[in-house]
Amino acid sequence: MPTTPKKRQSVKGARTRRLIKDAFIVLYGRLSWAEITLDEILKATGLTVGAFYFHFSSKDELIEEIAVETCKGYHTVIIDEINWDCDFFEIAHQIIHHYYQSYIRNPVLSRLMYSVVFRRSTAHAVWLESRKPLREKIEQSIHGALSDHSAQTPVDVAFTSHLLLSSLEDFLFAVFMSKGNTELSSLASGPDFFIRQQAIIWYRSALGKDPTHKLAGRTPNRKNA
Amino acid sequence: MPTTPKKRQSVKGARTRRLIKDAFIVLYGRLSWAEITLDEILKATGLTVGAFYFHFSSKDELIEEIAVETCKGYHTVIIDEINWDCDFFEIAHQIIHHYYQSYIRNPVLSRLMYSVVFRRSTAHAVWLESRKPLREKIEQSIHGALSDHSAQTPVDVAFTSHLLLSSLEDFLFAVFMSKGNTELSSLASGPDFFIRQQAIIWYRSALGKDPTHKLAGRTPNRKNA
Repeated sequence: MPTTPKKRQSVKGARTRRLIKDAFIVLYGRLSWAEITLDEILKATGLTVGAFYFHFSSKDELIEEIAVETCKGYHTVIIDEINWDCDFFEIAHQIIHHYYQSYIRNPVLSRLMYSVVFRRSTAHAVWLESRKPLREKIEQSIHGALSDHSAQTPVDVAFTSHLLLSSLEDFLFAVFMSKGNTELSSLASGPDFFIRQQAIIWYRSALGKDPTHKLAGRTPNRKNA
Repeated sequence: MPTTPKKRQSVKGARTRRLIKDAFIVLYGRLSWAEITLDEILKATGLTVGAFYFHFSSKDELIEEIAVETCKGYHTVIIDEINWDCDFFEIAHQIIHHYYQSYIRNPVLSRLMYSVVFRRSTAHAVWLESRKPLREKIEQSIHGALSDHSAQTPVDVAFTSHLLLSSLEDFLFAVFMSKGNTELSSLASGPDFFIRQQAIIWYRSALGKDPTHKLAGRTPNRKNA
């Protein structure tokens, strides 16, 4: 994976950068952004102020590099885990499920990544570029589903794929990473409900009808869906 | 509008806080977050370091207070501007249109607000609380539309209203506030296209079918929709 070209990369230098990044990720698991001072980072790594600033110009640069690294692998894993050769409702279900799993597997790194890509334009651009293959797979799947149903659509398919993926990311962030909002945290208590409801909305958005073949008269239930 | 209770609020104190906030908003229009140093703020306001720190403990506290102030009025205006007594497609169209207008009327303040509410949990909680009446109006409108169509739905209506509003906010942010991504900036060049496409998806998500009475065989066109 390519790293920032700014600093000359010796093996030792790369190891120190890694040490700083790993220490920061651990700190981010128990402290807020404002609480992670330079002192905390130095204490955790045993480095001097000079050594830190040799590698990173600021805390902002450090967190941005971690976020960019994280999002580069994020979508490749999801694409590889999905069986694309099935019904669009099942594809949607898998995508939402794998996004949720990626979050569950590493909530700290996910929270860090989302916090950065939603506010730093450089990181946001890398994020959009890294998820482009996934977005294009979704676009292809919608085209495939429309063709299977011989359906016409008044909705632009590229637009739909952008919107669905954005809404998944933002809503996952809002539901599982924000604390203290009781309306949203009640949704977080039932990931199956969250995944299934959202998959139905993806199907509706893409095809303009319900995935009736998948629903079999079940009514939604927040606790046991 | 209530302000932070931390500091004793004299009239002069409130005026100085306002001066700092207004100066910061102007700076935010031409500089990035990292570029707005304390020096820049002092130069713009004519205040001393001590005077700044008497009012705000950090740049973070300052930007969060501005974001919280901004989002408090944001949704009330939108609720008041909408004619809720019409078809759900038209309601969706109006909501998306007014969100877009709120952004166009003040892009700097909107960008500032979105950047903060998506990353600071306190501001995010205020944001969610302030948009709750709008979300509930959307929920009621979906219930009304379902009842008008005598439609059953496998989708939880509260869930749908949350997801639609989150997706609107995030996608508006991604399309109109991020720079340098050609795929997304092509959508920003046609707000009418953006609004109409999203309104159709809202209708589909809520009712599981197309708003055929509103489409009249038009095909989507990114440039002139």
